[in-house]
Amino acid sequence: MSILLHIDYGSKTPVFKQITLRVIELINSEVLTPGEKLPASRTLADQLGVNRSTVYKAYQELWALGYIDSTPGSYSTVRSRAKLVSDGDRSEPSLIDWHRQCRTAQSDMGDVYREETELTAKLYTRAQKCGHTPAVIDFTPLVPDKRFFPVDEYRKCVGEVYTQRGRELLGYGDPKGYEPLREYIAERLQLHGVHSSTRQIMITSGAQSALSLIFTAYTSPGEKVVVESPTYSRAIGLAKLHGVELLPIEMHDEAMDLEQLKQVVADEAPSLIYTIPNFHNPTGITSSQRHREALLRIAEGYQVPIVEDGFEEEMKYFGKAVLPIKSMDRRGIVLYVGTFSKVLFPGVRIGWIAGDETALDQLTALQKFSQLAGSSIDQAALNLYCRRGHYENHIKRMHRIYRTRMQVALQSLDEFLTGTAVCWTRPAGGYTLWLHMSGGSFEEEEILHNIAAQGVLVSPGRFHYSNGSQGIAFRISIGAVEEEQIKEGIRRLAGALPSGPA
Amino acid sequence: MSILLHIDYGSKTPVFKQITLRVIELINSEVLTPGEKLPASRTLADQLGVNRSTVYKAYQELWALGYIDSTPGSYSTVRSRAKLVSDGDRSEPSLIDWHRQCRTAQSDMGDVYREETELTAKLYTRAQKCGHTPAVIDFTPLVPDKRFFPVDEYRKCVGEVYTQRGRELLGYGDPKGYEPLREYIAERLQLHGVHSSTRQIMITSGAQSALSLIFTAYTSPGEKVVVESPTYSRAIGLAKLHGVELLPIEMHDEAMDLEQLKQVVADEAPSLIYTIPNFHNPTGITSSQRHREALLRIAEGYQVPIVEDGFEEEMKYFGKAVLPIKSMDRRGIVLYVGTFSKVLFPGVRIGWIAGDETALDQLTALQKFSQLAGSSIDQAALNLYCRRGHYENHIKRMHRIYRTRMQVALQSLDEFLTGTAVCWTRPAGGYTLWLHMSGGSFEEEEILHNIAAQGVLVSPGRFHYSNGSQGIAFRISIGAVEEEQIKEGIRRLAGALPSGPA
Repeated sequence: MSILLHIDYGSKTPVFKQITLRVIELINSEVLTPGEKLPASRTLADQLGVNRSTVYKAYQELWALGYIDSTPGSYSTVRSRAKLVSDGDRSEPSLIDWHRQCRTAQSDMGDVYREETELTAKLYTRAQKCGHTPAVIDFTPLVPDKRFFPVDEYRKCVGEVYTQRGRELLGYGDPKGYEPLREYIAERLQLHGVHSSTRQIMITSGAQSALSLIFTAYTSPGEKVVVESPTYSRAIGLAKLHGVELLPIEMHDEAMDLEQLKQVVADEAPSLIYTIPNFHNPTGITSSQRHREALLRIAEGYQVPIVEDGFEEEMKYFGKAVLPIKSMDRRGIVLYVGTFSKVLFPGVRIGWIAGDETALDQLTALQKFSQLAGSSIDQAALNLYCRRGHYENHIKRMHRIYRTRMQVALQSLDEFLTGTAVCWTRPAGGYTLWLHMSGGSFEEEEILHNIAAQGVLVSPGRFHYSNGSQGIAFRISIGAVEEEQIKEGIRRLAGALPSGPA
Repeated sequence: MSILLHIDYGSKTPVFKQITLRVIELINSEVLTPGEKLPASRTLADQLGVNRSTVYKAYQELWALGYIDSTPGSYSTVRSRAKLVSDGDRSEPSLIDWHRQCRTAQSDMGDVYREETELTAKLYTRAQKCGHTPAVIDFTPLVPDKRFFPVDEYRKCVGEVYTQRGRELLGYGDPKGYEPLREYIAERLQLHGVHSSTRQIMITSGAQSALSLIFTAYTSPGEKVVVESPTYSRAIGLAKLHGVELLPIEMHDEAMDLEQLKQVVADEAPSLIYTIPNFHNPTGITSSQRHREALLRIAEGYQVPIVEDGFEEEMKYFGKAVLPIKSMDRRGIVLYVGTFSKVLFPGVRIGWIAGDETALDQLTALQKFSQLAGSSIDQAALNLYCRRGHYENHIKRMHRIYRTRMQVALQSLDEFLTGTAVCWTRPAGGYTLWLHMSGGSFEEEEILHNIAAQGVLVSPGRFHYSNGSQGIAFRISIGAVEEEQIKEGIRRLAGALPSGPA
């Protein structure tokens, strides 16, 4: 075998790794076949002129990776690695009818987002063939740009908590969350006018987990939840899963229609009101302080808890701050949901709920039995990152970047879409804008395909409505698209949309 | 203020940190009071003879920690930090009756473990006053000893994935879990005779999350689930939460009673059979291959899915390997649950389910809407740790340690408890042993108090029964107790227990 191995001593790749990689290559290309003996490590080491421990290390890695079998005192042999998957494939069909077995409201939960997955894949394929450079400008992901993930500072904090307190923090944590981080969140919320104590905050595995706990605790199948229309698509999926009926309240230019809300709450006795008052997903609309007060008063009047989704609270670029509904909540009626994922990176699976202590006790118990507790060490690393001022600095940096991006988006829309049938929102923060077409007899699917044919991907309006599309609309997110491409993407959009009077 | 600050230039603590800590001390001891001005950073720097940036850094940290307010171009002032909590305390009682609002089967979920929490606290207080040294020998936590957490190797793997692939891995991950880790788990399961493909494995936030997903997907309130009696206490809590009725099957010395199982399955048509065949929690009993086959046959006959909890699969110390029920599952009837938490450390919130692909699709969708996805970077770090052979080596090390501990426990029981009214199990692996008293007219509570009075804590039998205590029994876990203390703890136990013929 040694003649098949060429060691490059000038390479930065360690020699043992070179051996490992080359052997894998030989196995994958079937030059070495299952059952074949590898040379003894001493023999191969002599032939290659390397230390025996180097070969030994390579063999160990190959063994760990499942490429070779090894018996003490005997030769290592190439392992039949493919067997694994094919064994699984050969198993008989299940004796259990899992669809009948499934008790959730949506037994084939894939259905909840199958249409979404399929349409997205179709549009992506279309976009790739557009012939432009760059081929695809993707306005769909509602995430911060990974170029700005503060990886280095964060890594240092992670390293420090492992080094200094690893042994202590790797045990089971508090199901309510790491207390110093809860305290930090409480302090941070004060900046937004929310005065929750540390005990009134629990940490969750991101905002989605917070919403899931709240739905599990406070809704039953057949019950009703008020949502804005359009709303966050994963909240629609969550409701379907729970067999909960959604009551969509129309979004006007400023916020949801309060007259309609009052009527619906009076008539339908919903279990919850779910709202995203800041940089609303998908429209980007921010409601006014006055609107928030009125909404709170309606909820108080009918004693319906409000779930306030503040997922982008920190990402305000323009105008005067509008404080969360929670900041006015004197009667413990608002469950406020927040997250670090939309400012730092999605991989930090840390969000929170601020709310009444009785409710938090229930939600904490639910979390305890759902997953015992989150990772204390992850929460401690985030806490250190925040306490050092990095979070604050990162927010400032993100504001600079996204204020400009949002400006570019709005300027480009003004430049390329003024005078067409398309209207759009002018968000004061966050990552998303909402485009909708007034009048005309267009098909949403057709328009989406036209847009994709220009190499642009947008999030179809229909994903954001609980009751099917209301006219033609779509969301564009500037989270992961840089300035030049925002401009280019919107220029292309204009070419794909039917022109006509707004 | 400067006269109150003494900088120790010989200290390892950085100067800015010294300033920070001292100011916090002065605020906490009310030498500096809310509203009080701090000296300008330049002034203080001159007075202390340090660089201005040092003072600036200290002030920044104090601000981040919420100890001072700061207005650009003006003085920093001491902040009224206590206000935070008291504000929360002052809020009016909630307008929502959260107990009525709560829809889970157990509206006051605290009840599920309130008795447990209270009794545990009471016994702990009692133990602390025992007068022995060490005061408390705690046989309750079912966790590996933190002295053996492989923190350093693990930290290196975490650091490497951040450094090399942080930007990529901190986005949203696959709701089914990081594929290379799923592949590793598939390979590892092969060692236990389980041939699942990578697609037949999903990663969860620990084993508890796996059980919670399975209960959510496959049980409804009022339905029934078979469990061993006694069983894992958090599975009992989970069932209560879901409003599921448990059907307890008595554990004999070798495993659960199959005659009773057959009868119950035929009569009650349970939705699931939950079993822990290896080092059963709490008894430590391992069922035989023959028993597993018979159990599988019963489940197949009645088409009831088996949930096989393999939480300590890797921790076998004595005797011949018994392969999981899953290894014989040709008909996709077994959902196998595993975890890394009981070998590495609880803080690694990573477990998995191996099972039929249709079922996994359902569970993955459920996970997607419950928390979007787990942390890819955590999963990638674990994968790297495993691929390097560290996991394998760590398991070997743990075997050496815990084989000895288990031997010490068994020898001590033989030495101190032979001839008493107490019987015990002889586990072949894992962390737990089960002691029970035959005959006699003892009160469990009284015995627990006697044990605590000797400075020993055990896990009361009643926590492990879904239908109340069956005789007097308790679990001891050797996970976090070292050899000498195991011996001493069991010696003390003997003194606390009523003597008499076995």
